Amino acid sequence: MDLSTLLGIAAAFGLMLMAILQGGPLSIFINIPSLLIVVGGTIGVTFIHYPFGDVLGAINVAKKTVLYKETSINDMIAQLMEFANKARKEGILALQGAMNDVSDEFLVKAMQMAVDGQEPETLRSMLSTEIEYIQQRHEKGATIFLSIAIYAPAMGMVGTLIGLVQMLQTMDDPAAIGPAMAVALLTTFYGAVIANIVFNPMAGKLKTRSQSEVLLKTLIIEGMQSILSGENPRIMEQKLHAFIAPKLRQSTFK
Amino acid sequence: MDLSTLLGIAAAFGLMLMAILQGGPLSIFINIPSLLIVVGGTIGVTFIHYPFGDVLGAINVAKKTVLYKETSINDMIAQLMEFANKARKEGILALQGAMNDVSDEFLVKAMQMAVDGQEPETLRSMLSTEIEYIQQRHEKGATIFLSIAIYAPAMGMVGTLIGLVQMLQTMDDPAAIGPAMAVALLTTFYGAVIANIVFNPMAGKLKTRSQSEVLLKTLIIEGMQSILSGENPRIMEQKLHAFIAPKLRQSTFK
Amino acid sequence: MDLSTLLGIAAAFGLMLMAILQGGPLSIFINIPSLLIVVGGTIGVTFIHYPFGDVLGAINVAKKTVLYKETSINDMIAQLMEFANKARKEGILALQGAMNDVSDEFLVKAMQMAVDGQEPETLRSMLSTEIEYIQQRHEKGATIFLSIAIYAPAMGMVGTLIGLVQMLQTMDDPAAIGPAMAVALLTTFYGAVIANIVFNPMAGKLKTRSQSEVLLKTLIIEGMQSILSGENPRIMEQKLHAFIAPKLRQSTFK
Amino acid sequence: MDLSTLLGIAAAFGLMLMAILQGGPLSIFINIPSLLIVVGGTIGVTFIHYPFGDVLGAINVAKKTVLYKETSINDMIAQLMEFANKARKEGILALQGAMNDVSDEFLVKAMQMAVDGQEPETLRSMLSTEIEYIQQRHEKGATIFLSIAIYAPAMGMVGTLIGLVQMLQTMDDPAAIGPAMAVALLTTFYGAVIANIVFNPMAGKLKTRSQSEVLLKTLIIEGMQSILSGENPRIMEQKLHAFIAPKLRQSTFK
Amino acid sequence: MDLSTLLGIAAAFGLMLMAILQGGPLSIFINIPSLLIVVGGTIGVTFIHYPFGDVLGAINVAKKTVLYKETSINDMIAQLMEFANKARKEGILALQGAMNDVSDEFLVKAMQMAVDGQEPETLRSMLSTEIEYIQQRHEKGATIFLSIAIYAPAMGMVGTLIGLVQMLQTMDDPAAIGPAMAVALLTTFYGAVIANIVFNPMAGKLKTRSQSEVLLKTLIIEGMQSILSGENPRIMEQKLHAFIAPKLRQSTFK
Repeated sequence: MDLSTLLGIAAAFGLMLMAILQGGPLSIFINIPSLLIVVGGTIGVTFIHYPFGDVLGAINVAKKTVLYKETSINDMIAQLMEFANKARKEGILALQGAMNDVSDEFLVKAMQMAVDGQEPETLRSMLSTEIEYIQQRHEKGATIFLSIAIYAPAMGMVGTLIGLVQMLQTMDDPAAIGPAMAVALLTTFYGAVIANIVFNPMAGKLKTRSQSEVLLKTLIIEGMQSILSGENPRIMEQKLHAFIAPKLRQSTFK
Repeated sequence: MDLSTLLGIAAAFGLMLMAILQGGPLSIFINIPSLLIVVGGTIGVTFIHYPFGDVLGAINVAKKTVLYKETSINDMIAQLMEFANKARKEGILALQGAMNDVSDEFLVKAMQMAVDGQEPETLRSMLSTEIEYIQQRHEKGATIFLSIAIYAPAMGMVGTLIGLVQMLQTMDDPAAIGPAMAVALLTTFYGAVIANIVFNPMAGKLKTRSQSEVLLKTLIIEGMQSILSGENPRIMEQKLHAFIAPKLRQSTFK
Repeated sequence: MDLSTLLGIAAAFGLMLMAILQGGPLSIFINIPSLLIVVGGTIGVTFIHYPFGDVLGAINVAKKTVLYKETSINDMIAQLMEFANKARKEGILALQGAMNDVSDEFLVKAMQMAVDGQEPETLRSMLSTEIEYIQQRHEKGATIFLSIAIYAPAMGMVGTLIGLVQMLQTMDDPAAIGPAMAVALLTTFYGAVIANIVFNPMAGKLKTRSQSEVLLKTLIIEGMQSILSGENPRIMEQKLHAFIAPKLRQSTFK
Repeated sequence: MDLSTLLGIAAAFGLMLMAILQGGPLSIFINIPSLLIVVGGTIGVTFIHYPFGDVLGAINVAKKTVLYKETSINDMIAQLMEFANKARKEGILALQGAMNDVSDEFLVKAMQMAVDGQEPETLRSMLSTEIEYIQQRHEKGATIFLSIAIYAPAMGMVGTLIGLVQMLQTMDDPAAIGPAMAVALLTTFYGAVIANIVFNPMAGKLKTRSQSEVLLKTLIIEGMQSILSGENPRIMEQKLHAFIAPKLRQSTFK
Repeated sequence: MDLSTLLGIAAAFGLMLMAILQGGPLSIFINIPSLLIVVGGTIGVTFIHYPFGDVLGAINVAKKTVLYKETSINDMIAQLMEFANKARKEGILALQGAMNDVSDEFLVKAMQMAVDGQEPETLRSMLSTEIEYIQQRHEKGATIFLSIAIYAPAMGMVGTLIGLVQMLQTMDDPAAIGPAMAVALLTTFYGAVIANIVFNPMAGKLKTRSQSEVLLKTLIIEGMQSILSGENPRIMEQKLHAFIAPKLRQSTFK
C-alpha cells in the first residue's frame, strides 16, 4: 500500500483519538443513529448523483491508485534511450523482441504500433486520444470522491438541524439541553471527519497519481515518436529531459 | 427508472425519516407556512432567473435522463465494426438497408449522411456542431437544477431570519423561545434537504448522463468517419478502443 | 414585460409577505436606517466598483432584456431558407428588396454585407467580431448585477455587526436585548432578500437572454454564409437544424 | 479623480457613519489595538504574499487608474479614420507629421511602426504582445487588491478569536461579557469594512479600467493594420464599429 | 532571505502577539493537545493527499524561492542585446566563449543550443516544453501550500467540535463552561493562523516568484530566437521591451 497514505491516515486518526480520549471517554463520540444518517445518507445521495457503475469504478480506481507502484521517470527515459539505440542499430523491427521484457502496457502498445509500421503522427494522435480518455476516467474517480467530501458535511448539517429542532421543541429539562446539543453536533463532526480526513485528501492523491501516470505516458509518446522519426538520440534525450527537473537529469552521454 | 437514483432517494429519505422518528414525532418537522416560503419562494426565484420554456425543458431533460436506457459502448463499437465490414464488402450504400434496424437517432443521421455521399470532413463537422448544441441544452438543464440547489438554502435562510426577527421582538414568554426558534430553523432545514438530497445530486446525474451520451455520439462520429474514409478495420477498432478502459476492450479480431 | 420574471417576483415577494404577516405585523421588518445602510451602502460600493456609464448601461441592458420579445429560432430558420431560395432563383441582389421587411438589425446588416458583395469569410469574421463585443457588453451588465448580489449581503453583515457592537456595549436592560438584536438582524435580512430574490436571479435572466440572442445571431451568420457560398439548401437546412433540438426541427422539404 | 469612486466612497462611509451615530457614540467603534491587528496584520500578510515591488506597483496602478482620463472610443475611431484618409491621399509617411498631435503613447508607437515600414502582420503581433503584458501588469494590481480583501476579514477573524478566548477565560464579571464581546467583534467589523467597502470594489474598478484600456488599444491595432493594408475606409469603419454598441456608432460617411 | 517575506511574518506575528499580551497572559493561547491535533492532523492529512516526494519537493521549492535572488529583467535584456551584437559581428559561434560568464542555467542551455546549430523553431519548441514543465513543478509546490491552508482550518474545526461535544456532555459546573469553550476555540484559532498568516501568503509568494521566473525564461527564448534568426537588433529590442512597462524601458540605441 502507498506508504504516505497509510501513515497519514494513522497520524490524523491517531491524533484525533488522542485528543478525544484526553478529554473524556470515546463513547460520547459514538452514536449509531447519527452515524447512520451521515454515512448512510451520504451513500444514498452519492447514488442519486452517480450511476452504480461509476461508483464501483471509482472504488477500483482508488484501490489501484493506492496500491500502484510508480515507475521512475528516469528509468523510463533510460529504457526509451535504449530502444532508440537498438532501433538505430538493428532497425525498428528489433523492438518486437524487446517487447516481452516490458511490463508497462501503454509502452507495449506504443511499441506494437511502431513495429506495425504506423506513421509517427498517427501514433501520436491515437495514443494522445487514449491518454485523454484515461484522464477522463481518472478524473471521474477523483470527482466522485470530491462529491462525497461535499455531501458528507451537508448530511452532517441536516442531522444537526434535526437534532436542534427536536431539542428546541422539548426544552423542559435544562439539564438535558447540553447532552442533546452534543448529540446534535455529532453529525456535523462525522461529516467534517469524513470529508476532511478521508475523501478530500484521497481525491487529491487520485489526482496526483493520475498526473504522474499521464506524465509518464506523454513521455512514452514523445520518445516513441522520436524513435519512429529516427531522431538524433542526443536531441531525443534533451526532449525527454525537459519533462523532469534539471538536477534529476542523468545523461546517458558522457 | 434509473435504479441508482431510486435507491439513493429511498435510502437518503428513509434514513432521515428514521433519525427524525427516533427522536420525536414527525409532526414537529412539518410546518406549512415554512414549506410555502421555501418551496414556493424557490420556484418564484427560479422563474425570475429562467424563462418558462427553459424550466419546462429542464424537467423534460431530467425525466428523459432518469428514464434513459444507456447503450453499452461495447455494443456500439461492435455495431460500427459490423457496418465497417459491410461497407467494405458491399459498398457504402449497403448501409441504407442496415439503417432500419438501428434505434439510435444520431447513428441513423450519421448513416444517412454517409449514404448521401457527404465528405468525411463535412460529416464530422456537421455532427460535431450537433453534439455541441446537444451539450448546451443538457448543460442548461443541469444548470437550472444547480440554481435551485443554491436558491433553496437562500430562501431557507430568509425564512429563518424572518422567524428570528419575530421571535426576538416578542420575547415575553421564555417558554415560547425554544419552539419559536425550532420553527424558524425549519426553513433552513427544508432548504438544506431540497438542495443536498434532491437538486444537487440530480444535477450531478444529469451531467453524468450527458457525458455518457456525448461520449457515445463522439464514438459514432469517429466510427462513421473511419467507414467513410475506408480505413483499415483493425486501425478503426484501435481508434474506437481508445474511448474505453483497456480491460473492457473486446476485439472482433482473434 | 417578460412574464416569468413578473410572476416569479410576485410569487417570491408574495410568499415572503405572507410568512411575515402570519407571524406578526409587517412594521417590525421595516427600519429606515437599516434600509439606508444596506441599499445606500450597496449603491455606494457599486459606484466605487463600476464607472457611472457602466451602471447606467447595465440598467438599460436589464430593461431591454426584460422587455425583449424573443424571436423564434424556427421562424428565423424559415426566413433564412426563404432568402436562400430567393438568392438561388433571382441572384444575391434580390435580397436588397427583401431587407425592408426584416426587423432584426443584425440580419439587415448581414444582408447588406451580402448584397455589397463581401466574401463569405469576411462576412463571417466581421459579424463574429460584432457578436463577441455584444457578448462582452451583455456580460458586463450581468456582472454588475452579480456584484450587487455580493455587496448587498456584505453591507447587511456590516450593518448587523454595527448593531451587535452597540447592543453588546449597552446591555443594561435585558428586555431590550431581544428587540435590539432583531433590528441588528434586519440588515442581514435586507441583504439576503436583495441578493437572492432580486439581483442574483435577474443576473441569471440577463445571461439566459444573452445566450438566446447570441445563438440567434450565430444562426444568422451560419445561414448568410451558406447563402453567399451558394450552398445546397438541404445541406444548409441540416446545418441550421443542428442548432435546435431534434423534435423542434421542421423541414421545409417534404 | 474618478468621480464615481469618490462619490461611492463618500456615500458608503457616510451612510455607515450615520448608522453608527444614530445608535450611540462613534467612540465605541474605535479601538486602537483592534485596528492595529487588522490593518497592520493585513499589511504584514500582504508582504509575505507579494514582493515589495509588486505592492508598490499596485499602488501606482491604482493611483493612475483612478486619476485616468478615459479616451472616448468614438473619438479614437474618428482619429483613426482621419489618419486612414490622410494615408490614402498623401501616403503612409504623412502620418509622421500627424504624430506630434497625438497624446496616446500606444497610438504613437503604432504610427511610428507604420512609418518605419513594418509589415501589417508584424505590427499586429508586436503590439498584441505588448497588450498581453500590459494586461498581466494590470491584473497583478487588481489581484493584490483582491488578496487584501481576503486577508483583512481573515485577520479580523483571528482578532475576534483572540478576544473571545480571552473573554471566555475570564468570565468572572457577567457585566463585562457584553463589552468584551463588542470589542472582540470590532476586528471582524474592521475586516468586513476594509474588504467590502474599500478593496473589493477598488479591485473591480482596476479591472474595469484595464478592460477599457485594452479595448482602446485593440481598436488602435485593428485600425493601424487596416491603414497599413490600404483597406477601403468604409470596410475599416465597419470593422471598428463592431467594437461599440450600434447606437453609439457615428459614421463619417453620409 | 527574501526581505518582504521576513518583514511580513515579523509584522503579522508581532502585532498578533501584542494584541494577545495586551489582553492577558500568552499562556492561555498555548495548549499542547490542541496544537497536536491541528499541526499533526494537518501534516497527516497532507500525506494522505500528496506522496512523500511531492511534499519534500514543495519544501525545497519554497526554500529556493524565498532565498532566490531575482535577476533584473532589464539586465537580462541588456545581456541579450550584447549577445545579439556579438553574434552579428563575430558569428553565432562567438557565443561559445561568452557562455562562461553566464550564471543563468536556462540561458546557458539556450546558448548551447544556438551554438550547436539548432533551428530557431526547434529551440523555441524545446525550451517552451521545458518552461511548461518548470511551471507544472512550481504549481505543484504552491498547490501543496494551498492545500495545507485548507486542511489546517478544517482540522481546527474538527478540534473545536471535539471540545464542544465534550463540554456539552459535562456541563455540571457552570464556571468551567467558559474556559472549556476557550480551549475548544483554540484549535480554530490555530487553524486560522496557520492558514492565513503562513501558508496562504507563502503559496502566493511561490506563485509570484514562479511568474517572474517564467517571464524571464520566456524573454530568453524570445531573445535567443531573434539572435538565431539574425533579426535586426532594433526590432529585437522592441520585441523584448514589450515584456516590461514603458517607463522601465532603457534603449541601448540613442
